[in-house]
Amino acid sequence: MKISELSRVSGVSVPTIKYYIREGLLPPGRQTTAPNQADYATEHEQLLRLIRTLTEVGGLSIGSVRTVITTLGDQRASIHELLGTAHRALPPILDDHDPPADLVEARADVDAYLTSLGWEVSAEAPARRMLAQALVSLRRLGRDVDASVFDPYAEAADTIAKHELASIAPEATRAQIVEAAIVGTVVFEHALVALRRLAQARHSAKRFS
Amino acid sequence: MKISELSRVSGVSVPTIKYYIREGLLPPGRQTTAPNQADYATEHEQLLRLIRTLTEVGGLSIGSVRTVITTLGDQRASIHELLGTAHRALPPILDDHDPPADLVEARADVDAYLTSLGWEVSAEAPARRMLAQALVSLRRLGRDVDASVFDPYAEAADTIAKHELASIAPEATRAQIVEAAIVGTVVFEHALVALRRLAQARHSAKRFS
Repeated sequence: MKISELSRVSGVSVPTIKYYIREGLLPPGRQTTAPNQADYATEHEQLLRLIRTLTEVGGLSIGSVRTVITTLGDQRASIHELLGTAHRALPPILDDHDPPADLVEARADVDAYLTSLGWEVSAEAPARRMLAQALVSLRRLGRDVDASVFDPYAEAADTIAKHELASIAPEATRAQIVEAAIVGTVVFEHALVALRRLAQARHSAKRFS
Repeated sequence: MKISELSRVSGVSVPTIKYYIREGLLPPGRQTTAPNQADYATEHEQLLRLIRTLTEVGGLSIGSVRTVITTLGDQRASIHELLGTAHRALPPILDDHDPPADLVEARADVDAYLTSLGWEVSAEAPARRMLAQALVSLRRLGRDVDASVFDPYAEAADTIAKHELASIAPEATRAQIVEAAIVGTVVFEHALVALRRLAQARHSAKRFS
């Protein structure tokens, strides 16, 4: 198909498609005999959909999208590695330079906590740092807590994640799995936060009104 | 105590304390015989701690903090009403002006869904809109889903919220309950998001590596 057709089916404007090609996110179309005209395939359409999901839903920068797409093209990378790359590219990107002493301590506490749960997770997973940040916030507010305060949340999170991984269709392609993981992580994250607030409201009504 | 002492025990600078008094968040200190000197009490210290939690942890604007504190002072407001006010003041503050048709439809779907779950929640709870936004995002990405896609998340959220409300000490004051609710909502929200990503990583390792 022509670039104008690709733009129509994908909902991405022609200048944006050209920008993605210049940035190396999308391969150029196949050259045809007509000058200044290239041919685009379904592969381009699927890749554009993934790029849109990564940027609009996931909030990824163009640099992070490039990392995900490069990994996607690397056939030696396992799907587990692909998902790790996608996760690491997701916001929040935390600044790890020169962390304060209480954060360093909280990180060690979180690492020990995950080990105690028996969760095998890469030492570089940025969510370790997110969790340590939550622990530090509680301690800075004067709460004398250790990481076991997260127990009910860990149990709920584990049930959800197990369900999510099980619901990935066995015949899904690598790109589909990565897209599903990003959508799942980001969109259902918002849903979970909203549902928790709604559940708090209902239990508050039961207890206090 | 003097304002300098209040600043020391609360960790809030003297100019910021004066700013809070001008903005009506904090009552002025009791006048003493010494000119330009006022006396501050433990009540001020506790209120400052709440203001810090609301702004630094909850991300509330000064206007939202004022709403929460005004409600706190209204002895006719039930604790359930107080918690509702605190929740409504929390980000994200969504723009409800002229919503697109698919969002209007998703809101109706979410309302019907919560009714089907038997959750009694105020019609104005902003988390209804957050959840509708998640549903719209999925549909815009081409997924043909209804609100029951949230079932596993609703179940997990309900278990967590029940635990959270049950863990509020019966002897807690109104201000302590509001502070605990904000801290609980915001900090444990981050913790829950982090733990879900970690649990996804571990289940991904089991399935794909």
